[in-house]
Amino acid sequence: MASEQKPVLYSYWRSSCSWRVRIALALKNIDYEYKTVDLLSEQAKSDLKAINPTAKVPAFVVNGQVLGESLAIIEYLEETHPEVPLLPKDPIKRALARQIALLVASGIQPLHNLKVLQILNKKEAGFGGQFAKQFVVEGLTALEVLLKEHSGKYAVGDVVTIADLNIPPLVYSANRFNLDLSAYPTVNRINATLAEIPAFIAAHPDNQPDTGLNA
Amino acid sequence: MASEQKPVLYSYWRSSCSWRVRIALALKNIDYEYKTVDLLSEQAKSDLKAINPTAKVPAFVVNGQVLGESLAIIEYLEETHPEVPLLPKDPIKRALARQIALLVASGIQPLHNLKVLQILNKKEAGFGGQFAKQFVVEGLTALEVLLKEHSGKYAVGDVVTIADLNIPPLVYSANRFNLDLSAYPTVNRINATLAEIPAFIAAHPDNQPDTGLNA
Repeated sequence: MASEQKPVLYSYWRSSCSWRVRIALALKNIDYEYKTVDLLSEQAKSDLKAINPTAKVPAFVVNGQVLGESLAIIEYLEETHPEVPLLPKDPIKRALARQIALLVASGIQPLHNLKVLQILNKKEAGFGGQFAKQFVVEGLTALEVLLKEHSGKYAVGDVVTIADLNIPPLVYSANRFNLDLSAYPTVNRINATLAEIPAFIAAHPDNQPDTGLNA
Repeated sequence: MASEQKPVLYSYWRSSCSWRVRIALALKNIDYEYKTVDLLSEQAKSDLKAINPTAKVPAFVVNGQVLGESLAIIEYLEETHPEVPLLPKDPIKRALARQIALLVASGIQPLHNLKVLQILNKKEAGFGGQFAKQFVVEGLTALEVLLKEHSGKYAVGDVVTIADLNIPPLVYSANRFNLDLSAYPTVNRINATLAEIPAFIAAHPDNQPDTGLNA
Protein backbone atom coordinates (compact mmCIF):
# COMPACT_ATOMS: atom_id res chain seq x y z
CA MET A 1 0.00 0.00 0.00
CA ALA A 2 1.31 3.44 -0.88
CA SER A 3 2.19 5.65 2.04
CA GLU A 4 -0.10 8.57 2.83
CA GLN A 5 0.15 11.41 0.35
CA LYS A 6 1.29 14.74 1.70
CA PRO A 7 -1.83 16.83 2.38
CA VAL A 8 -2.43 20.01 0.39
CA LEU A 9 -3.61 23.32 1.80
CA TYR A 10 -5.22 25.79 -0.58
CA SER A 11 -4.48 29.09 1.11
CA TYR A 12 -4.05 32.80 0.64
CA TRP A 13 -1.53 34.58 2.82
CA ARG A 14 -3.92 37.20 4.17
CA SER A 15 -6.98 34.95 4.56
CA SER A 16 -7.97 34.79 8.26
CA CYS A 17 -9.51 31.37 7.80
CA SER A 18 -6.45 29.90 6.05
CA TRP A 19 -4.28 31.40 8.77
CA ARG A 20 -6.15 29.53 11.53
CA VAL A 21 -5.53 26.21 9.77
CA ARG A 22 -1.87 27.06 9.15
CA ILE A 23 -1.42 27.60 12.90
CA ALA A 24 -2.99 24.22 13.69
CA LEU A 25 -0.80 22.48 11.10
CA ALA A 26 2.32 24.15 12.48
CA LEU A 27 1.45 23.41 16.14
CA LYS A 28 0.83 19.77 15.28
CA ASN A 29 3.96 19.66 13.14
CA ILE A 30 2.11 18.33 10.07
CA ASP A 31 3.96 18.64 6.78
CA TYR A 32 1.85 19.87 3.84
CA GLU A 33 2.02 21.34 0.39
CA TYR A 34 0.99 25.00 0.17
CA LYS A 35 -1.06 25.98 -2.87
CA THR A 36 -1.72 29.66 -3.36
CA VAL A 37 -5.17 30.83 -4.38
CA ASP A 38 -5.15 34.41 -5.58
CA LEU A 39 -8.47 35.53 -4.13
CA LEU A 40 -8.45 38.64 -6.30
CA SER A 41 -8.37 36.59 -9.51
CA GLU A 42 -11.74 35.45 -10.88
CA GLN A 43 -10.00 32.61 -12.74
CA ALA A 44 -8.32 31.37 -9.57
CA LYS A 45 -11.62 31.44 -7.70
CA SER A 46 -13.34 29.60 -10.51
CA ASP A 47 -10.60 26.93 -10.47
CA LEU A 48 -10.99 26.66 -6.70
CA LYS A 49 -14.74 26.14 -7.02
CA ALA A 50 -14.08 22.86 -8.83
CA ILE A 51 -12.27 21.72 -5.68
CA ASN A 52 -14.29 23.43 -2.94
CA PRO A 53 -17.91 24.26 -3.89
CA THR A 54 -17.93 27.41 -1.75
CA ALA A 55 -14.87 28.68 -3.69
CA LYS A 56 -13.34 29.65 -0.38
CA VAL A 57 -9.98 29.09 1.22
CA PRO A 58 -8.89 27.16 3.10
CA ALA A 59 -9.47 23.86 1.38
CA PHE A 60 -7.53 20.94 2.75
CA VAL A 61 -6.97 17.85 0.64
CA VAL A 62 -6.08 14.64 2.41
CA ASN A 63 -5.78 11.40 0.43
CA GLY A 64 -7.89 12.88 -2.35
CA GLN A 65 -10.69 14.00 -0.03
CA VAL A 66 -11.35 17.76 0.05
CA LEU A 67 -12.34 19.34 3.35
CA GLY A 68 -13.53 22.92 3.73
CA GLU A 69 -14.37 25.35 6.55
CA SER A 70 -11.45 26.20 8.81
CA LEU A 71 -12.92 24.97 12.09
CA ALA A 72 -14.01 21.65 10.53
CA ILE A 73 -10.47 21.16 9.20
CA ILE A 74 -8.99 21.99 12.61
CA GLU A 75 -11.33 19.52 14.37
CA TYR A 76 -10.27 16.89 11.80
CA LEU A 77 -6.60 17.59 12.53
CA GLU A 78 -7.35 17.37 16.25
CA GLU A 79 -8.99 13.97 15.87
CA THR A 80 -6.36 12.51 13.55
CA HIS A 81 -3.30 14.10 15.19
CA PRO A 82 -4.19 14.25 18.89
CA GLU A 83 -0.60 15.01 19.91
CA VAL A 84 -0.41 18.72 20.85
CA PRO A 85 -4.13 18.86 21.68
CA LEU A 86 -6.07 22.00 20.74
CA LEU A 87 -9.05 21.19 22.93
CA PRO A 88 -8.98 20.90 26.74
CA LYS A 89 -10.17 17.65 28.36
CA ASP A 90 -12.98 19.12 30.44
CA PRO A 91 -16.26 19.27 28.46
CA ILE A 92 -17.16 22.78 29.69
CA LYS A 93 -13.70 24.11 28.81
CA ARG A 94 -13.89 22.42 25.40
CA ALA A 95 -17.23 24.17 24.86
CA LEU A 96 -15.78 27.53 25.91
CA ALA A 97 -12.80 27.10 23.56
CA ARG A 98 -15.17 26.29 20.69
CA GLN A 99 -17.48 29.15 21.67
CA ILE A 100 -14.64 31.67 21.46
CA ALA A 101 -13.49 30.19 18.15
CA LEU A 102 -17.00 30.49 16.73
CA LEU A 103 -17.51 33.98 18.15
CA VAL A 104 -14.72 35.04 15.78
CA ALA A 105 -15.12 32.56 12.91
CA SER A 106 -18.89 32.79 12.65
CA GLY A 107 -19.80 35.99 14.51
CA ILE A 108 -17.19 38.42 13.18
CA GLN A 109 -15.11 37.23 10.22
CA PRO A 110 -18.00 36.53 7.80
CA LEU A 111 -19.11 40.15 8.20
CA HIS A 112 -15.81 41.67 7.12
CA ASN A 113 -14.68 39.26 4.43
CA LEU A 114 -13.55 40.49 1.06
CA LYS A 115 -16.79 39.79 -0.78
CA VAL A 116 -18.93 41.62 1.78
CA LEU A 117 -16.63 44.65 1.65
CA GLN A 118 -16.71 44.63 -2.16
CA ILE A 119 -20.53 44.52 -2.33
CA LEU A 120 -21.01 47.23 0.27
CA ASN A 121 -18.30 49.51 -1.12
CA LYS A 122 -19.93 49.24 -4.52
CA LYS A 123 -23.14 50.47 -2.89
CA GLU A 124 -21.31 53.44 -1.42
CA ALA A 125 -17.60 54.15 -1.14
CA GLY A 126 -16.46 53.47 2.43
CA PHE A 127 -19.68 51.78 3.54
CA GLY A 128 -18.01 48.35 3.64
CA GLY A 129 -15.47 49.43 6.22
CA GLN A 130 -18.07 51.29 8.25
CA PHE A 131 -20.31 48.19 8.32
CA ALA A 132 -17.46 45.80 9.10
CA LYS A 133 -15.92 47.91 11.87
CA GLN A 134 -19.19 47.87 13.79
CA PHE A 135 -19.17 44.07 13.94
CA VAL A 136 -15.44 43.86 14.69
CA VAL A 137 -15.87 46.27 17.63
CA GLU A 138 -18.93 44.44 18.91
CA GLY A 139 -17.15 41.10 18.60
CA LEU A 140 -13.97 42.34 20.29
CA THR A 141 -16.05 43.72 23.16
CA ALA A 142 -17.74 40.35 23.72
CA LEU A 143 -14.43 38.52 23.29
CA GLU A 144 -12.76 40.71 25.93
CA VAL A 145 -15.52 39.83 28.44
CA LEU A 146 -15.17 36.11 27.76
CA LEU A 147 -11.36 36.20 27.92
CA LYS A 148 -11.41 38.17 31.16
CA GLU A 149 -13.52 35.42 32.65
CA HIS A 150 -11.89 32.32 31.19
CA SER A 151 -8.32 33.07 30.15
CA GLY A 152 -5.14 32.05 31.86
CA LYS A 153 -1.94 32.48 29.93
CA TYR A 154 -4.03 31.75 26.81
CA ALA A 155 -7.69 32.17 25.88
CA VAL A 156 -9.03 29.26 27.91
CA GLY A 157 -6.64 28.34 30.69
CA ASP A 158 -2.90 27.94 30.35
CA VAL A 159 -2.65 25.81 27.21
CA VAL A 160 -3.17 26.92 23.62
CA THR A 161 -6.59 25.86 22.30
CA ILE A 162 -8.65 26.24 19.14
CA ALA A 163 -9.82 29.56 20.63
CA ASP A 164 -6.33 31.06 20.39
CA LEU A 165 -6.02 30.23 16.71
CA ASN A 166 -8.68 32.83 16.00
CA ILE A 167 -7.16 35.72 17.94
CA PRO A 168 -4.16 36.82 15.80
CA PRO A 169 -6.21 36.92 12.57
CA LEU A 170 -8.89 38.99 14.32
CA VAL A 171 -6.40 41.48 15.74
CA TYR A 172 -4.71 41.72 12.34
CA SER A 173 -8.05 42.56 10.70
CA ALA A 174 -8.87 45.08 13.41
CA ASN A 175 -5.53 46.77 12.75
CA ARG A 176 -6.24 46.86 9.01
CA PHE A 177 -9.44 48.74 9.88
CA ASN A 178 -7.34 51.13 12.04
CA LEU A 179 -9.37 50.35 15.14
CA ASP A 180 -8.21 51.53 18.55
CA LEU A 181 -7.62 48.31 20.50
CA SER A 182 -6.85 49.88 23.89
CA ALA A 183 -10.23 48.83 25.27
CA TYR A 184 -9.31 45.14 24.90
CA PRO A 185 -6.33 44.56 27.21
CA THR A 186 -6.89 40.81 27.58
CA VAL A 187 -7.15 40.33 23.82
CA ASN A 188 -3.93 42.31 23.41
CA ARG A 189 -2.10 40.43 26.15
CA ILE A 190 -2.98 37.03 24.71
CA ASN A 191 -2.24 38.15 21.16
CA ALA A 192 1.23 39.33 22.24
CA THR A 193 1.90 36.04 24.03
CA LEU A 194 0.82 34.02 20.98
CA ALA A 195 3.03 36.11 18.70
CA GLU A 196 6.12 34.63 20.40
CA ILE A 197 5.24 31.00 19.66
CA PRO A 198 7.23 29.55 16.70
CA ALA A 199 4.15 27.86 15.14
CA PHE A 200 2.27 31.17 15.24
CA ILE A 201 5.24 32.92 13.63
CA ALA A 202 5.46 30.27 10.90
CA ALA A 203 1.74 30.62 10.14
CA HIS A 204 1.73 34.43 10.02
CA PRO A 205 0.72 36.07 6.71
CA ASP A 206 4.16 37.67 6.48
CA ASN A 207 5.85 34.27 6.28
CA GLN A 208 3.95 32.48 3.49
CA PRO A 209 5.06 31.50 -0.03
CA ASP A 210 2.57 34.05 -1.44
CA THR A 211 3.23 36.84 1.05
CA GLY A 212 2.62 40.22 -0.55
CA LEU A 213 0.51 38.97 -3.47
CA ASN A 214 -1.92 41.84 -4.30
CA ALA A 215 -0.62 43.75 -1.29
CA MET B 1 -25.08 16.34 46.73
CA ALA B 2 -27.92 18.01 44.87
CA SER B 3 -28.90 16.42 41.61
CA GLU B 4 -28.00 18.25 38.39
CA GLN B 5 -30.08 21.31 37.76
CA LYS B 6 -32.24 21.27 34.68
CA PRO B 7 -30.38 23.16 31.92
CA VAL B 8 -31.84 26.39 30.58
CA LEU B 9 -32.01 27.40 26.93
CA TYR B 10 -32.36 31.08 26.11
CA SER B 11 -34.11 30.97 22.77
CA TYR B 12 -36.31 32.82 20.34
CA TRP B 13 -38.77 30.79 18.28
CA ARG B 14 -37.61 32.08 14.89
CA SER B 15 -33.86 32.17 15.62
CA SER B 16 -32.04 29.75 13.28
CA CYS B 17 -29.26 29.25 15.78
CA SER B 18 -31.61 28.49 18.68
CA TRP B 19 -33.52 26.11 16.43
CA ARG B 20 -30.39 24.01 15.72
CA VAL B 21 -29.79 23.55 19.45
CA ARG B 22 -33.47 22.71 20.07
CA ILE B 23 -33.19 19.91 17.49
CA ALA B 24 -30.08 18.49 19.20
CA LEU B 25 -31.77 18.64 22.61
CA ALA B 26 -34.88 16.92 21.26
CA LEU B 27 -32.90 14.21 19.41
CA LYS B 28 -30.90 13.49 22.54
CA ASN B 29 -34.03 13.62 24.68
CA ILE B 30 -32.58 16.18 27.09
CA ASP B 31 -35.09 17.96 29.30
CA TYR B 32 -34.58 21.72 29.62
CA GLU B 33 -36.25 24.95 30.66
CA TYR B 34 -37.11 27.27 27.76
CA LYS B 35 -36.56 30.98 28.37
CA THR B 36 -37.81 33.33 25.71
CA VAL B 37 -35.66 36.24 24.60
CA ASP B 38 -37.63 38.78 22.63
CA LEU B 39 -34.98 39.73 20.08
CA LEU B 40 -36.95 42.80 19.03
CA SER B 41 -36.85 44.26 22.56
CA GLU B 42 -33.77 46.33 23.43
CA GLN B 43 -34.39 45.65 27.13
CA ALA B 44 -34.49 41.87 26.57
CA LYS B 45 -31.24 42.03 24.57
CA SER B 46 -29.60 44.13 27.28
CA ASP B 47 -30.69 41.61 29.94
CA LEU B 48 -29.32 38.79 27.76
CA LYS B 49 -25.96 40.54 27.45
CA ALA B 50 -25.44 40.11 31.19
CA ILE B 51 -25.69 36.35 30.59
CA ASN B 52 -24.11 35.99 27.15
CA PRO B 53 -21.63 38.77 26.21
CA THR B 54 -22.57 38.58 22.53
CA ALA B 55 -26.24 39.24 23.48
CA LYS B 56 -27.18 36.45 21.11
CA VAL B 57 -29.39 33.43 21.37
CA PRO B 58 -28.98 30.60 21.95
CA ALA B 59 -27.36 30.67 25.36
CA PHE B 60 -27.35 27.39 27.22
CA VAL B 61 -26.90 27.32 30.99
CA VAL B 62 -25.75 24.09 32.55
CA ASN B 63 -24.99 23.98 36.29
CA GLY B 64 -24.52 27.74 36.36
CA GLN B 65 -22.11 27.80 33.40
CA VAL B 66 -23.26 29.76 30.36
CA LEU B 67 -22.36 28.44 26.91
CA GLY B 68 -22.92 30.34 23.67
CA GLU B 69 -22.64 29.69 19.92
CA SER B 70 -24.97 27.01 18.62
CA LEU B 71 -22.34 24.64 17.22
CA ALA B 72 -20.27 24.81 20.41
CA ILE B 73 -23.37 23.96 22.44
CA ILE B 74 -24.20 21.07 20.10
CA GLU B 75 -20.64 19.68 20.35
CA TYR B 76 -20.94 19.93 24.15
CA LEU B 77 -24.22 18.00 24.07
CA GLU B 78 -22.59 15.43 21.80
CA GLU B 79 -19.70 14.92 24.22
CA THR B 80 -21.81 14.79 27.37
CA HIS B 81 -24.78 12.86 25.90
CA PRO B 82 -23.20 10.54 23.34
CA GLU B 83 -26.37 8.44 23.01
CA VAL B 84 -28.01 9.34 19.68
CA PRO B 85 -24.71 10.51 18.16
CA LEU B 86 -24.74 13.55 15.89
CA LEU B 87 -21.30 12.89 14.44
CA PRO B 88 -20.30 9.83 12.39
CA LYS B 89 -17.40 7.67 13.60
CA ASP B 90 -15.17 8.06 10.54
CA PRO B 91 -12.92 11.17 10.84
CA ILE B 92 -13.49 12.25 7.21
CA LYS B 93 -17.27 11.93 7.58
CA ARG B 94 -17.14 13.83 10.86
CA ALA B 95 -15.23 16.59 9.06
CA LEU B 96 -17.78 16.66 6.23
CA ALA B 97 -20.68 16.86 8.69
CA ARG B 98 -18.98 19.76 10.47
CA GLN B 99 -18.09 21.40 7.15
CA ILE B 100 -21.73 21.39 6.04
CA ALA B 101 -22.84 22.69 9.45
CA LEU B 102 -20.32 25.53 9.23
CA LEU B 103 -21.14 26.30 5.61
CA VAL B 104 -24.60 27.28 6.91
CA ALA B 105 -23.81 28.51 10.42
CA SER B 106 -20.77 30.55 9.51
CA GLY B 107 -21.02 31.03 5.74
CA ILE B 108 -24.69 31.95 5.31
CA GLN B 109 -26.63 32.68 8.51
CA PRO B 110 -24.43 35.54 9.82
CA LEU B 111 -25.07 37.40 6.56
CA HIS B 112 -28.84 37.40 6.87
CA ASN B 113 -29.35 37.80 10.58
CA LEU B 114 -31.70 40.41 11.97
CA LYS B 115 -29.06 42.99 12.83
CA VAL B 116 -27.45 42.87 9.37
CA LEU B 117 -30.84 43.29 7.71
CA GLN B 118 -31.69 46.21 10.00
CA ILE B 119 -28.43 48.06 9.27
CA LEU B 120 -28.65 47.54 5.52
CA ASN B 121 -32.34 48.38 5.28
CA LYS B 122 -31.63 51.59 7.17
CA LYS B 123 -29.09 52.41 4.46
CA GLU B 124 -31.68 51.81 1.75
CA ALA B 125 -35.10 50.20 1.95
CA GLY B 126 -34.90 46.66 0.57
CA PHE B 127 -31.10 46.53 0.42
CA GLY B 128 -30.90 44.11 3.37
CA GLY B 129 -32.97 41.48 1.59
CA GLN B 130 -31.10 41.99 -1.67
CA PHE B 131 -27.74 41.55 0.09
CA ALA B 132 -28.87 38.54 2.12
CA LYS B 133 -30.49 36.70 -0.79
CA GLN B 134 -27.23 36.74 -2.69
CA PHE B 135 -25.44 34.87 0.11
CA VAL B 136 -28.32 32.48 0.71
CA VAL B 137 -28.38 31.55 -3.01
CA GLU B 138 -24.62 31.17 -3.13
CA GLY B 139 -24.66 29.05 0.03
CA LEU B 140 -27.53 26.86 -1.17
CA THR B 141 -25.70 26.28 -4.46
CA ALA B 142 -22.55 25.08 -2.66
CA LEU B 143 -24.64 23.04 -0.21
CA GLU B 144 -26.44 21.28 -3.07
CA VAL B 145 -23.08 20.23 -4.57
CA LEU B 146 -21.82 18.88 -1.25
CA LEU B 147 -25.06 17.04 -0.50
CA LYS B 148 -25.16 15.49 -3.98
CA GLU B 149 -21.72 14.09 -3.30
CA HIS B 150 -22.03 13.03 0.33
CA SER B 151 -25.67 12.51 1.26
CA GLY B 152 -27.50 9.28 1.76
CA LYS B 153 -30.90 9.46 3.38
CA TYR B 154 -29.54 12.45 5.31
CA ALA B 155 -26.84 15.06 4.68
CA VAL B 156 -23.84 12.81 5.34
CA GLY B 157 -24.79 9.16 4.92
CA ASP B 158 -27.88 7.51 6.34
CA VAL B 159 -27.86 8.78 9.90
CA VAL B 160 -28.79 12.27 11.11
CA THR B 161 -25.70 14.37 11.89
CA ILE B 162 -24.89 17.89 13.02
CA ALA B 163 -25.07 18.84 9.32
CA ASP B 164 -28.79 18.08 9.15
CA LEU B 165 -29.57 20.35 12.11
CA ASN B 166 -28.68 23.32 9.91
CA ILE B 167 -30.85 22.47 6.92
CA PRO B 168 -34.42 23.20 8.09
CA PRO B 169 -33.51 26.64 9.48
CA LEU B 170 -31.75 27.51 6.20
CA VAL B 171 -34.69 26.42 4.04
CA TYR B 172 -37.07 28.31 6.35
CA SER B 173 -35.02 31.49 5.90
CA ALA B 174 -34.83 30.97 2.14
CA ASN B 175 -38.61 30.70 2.06
CA ARG B 176 -38.95 33.89 4.10
CA PHE B 177 -36.87 35.57 1.36
CA ASN B 178 -39.26 34.06 -1.25
CA LEU B 179 -36.42 32.29 -3.03
CA ASP B 180 -37.13 29.71 -5.70
CA LEU B 181 -35.67 26.48 -4.30
CA SER B 182 -36.23 24.28 -7.35
CA ALA B 183 -32.52 24.31 -8.21
CA TYR B 184 -31.68 22.48 -4.97
CA PRO B 185 -33.40 19.07 -5.21
CA THR B 186 -31.09 17.34 -2.72
CA VAL B 187 -31.55 20.09 -0.16
CA ASN B 188 -35.32 19.82 -0.63
CA ARG B 189 -35.36 16.03 -0.41
CA ILE B 190 -33.38 15.98 2.83
CA ASN B 191 -35.38 18.85 4.30
CA ALA B 192 -38.63 16.96 3.59
CA THR B 193 -37.23 13.79 5.17
CA LEU B 194 -36.12 15.67 8.27
CA ALA B 195 -39.52 17.34 8.60
CA GLU B 196 -41.07 13.94 9.44
CA ILE B 197 -38.81 13.25 12.44
CA PRO B 198 -40.54 13.91 15.80
CA ALA B 199 -37.51 15.75 17.28
CA PHE B 200 -37.41 18.07 14.27
CA ILE B 201 -41.15 18.70 14.62
CA ALA B 202 -40.77 19.46 18.34
CA ALA B 203 -37.94 21.92 17.64
CA HIS B 204 -39.73 23.78 14.81
CA PRO B 205 -40.43 27.49 15.34
CA ASP B 206 -44.17 26.82 15.10
CA ASN B 207 -44.08 24.62 18.20
CA GLN B 208 -42.30 26.79 20.78
CA PRO B 209 -43.63 28.52 23.92
CA ASP B 210 -43.04 31.90 22.25
CA THR B 211 -44.28 30.99 18.77
CA GLY B 212 -45.73 34.02 17.04
CA LEU B 213 -44.06 36.64 19.24
CA ASN B 214 -43.52 39.71 16.97
CA ALA B 215 -44.79 37.70 14.00
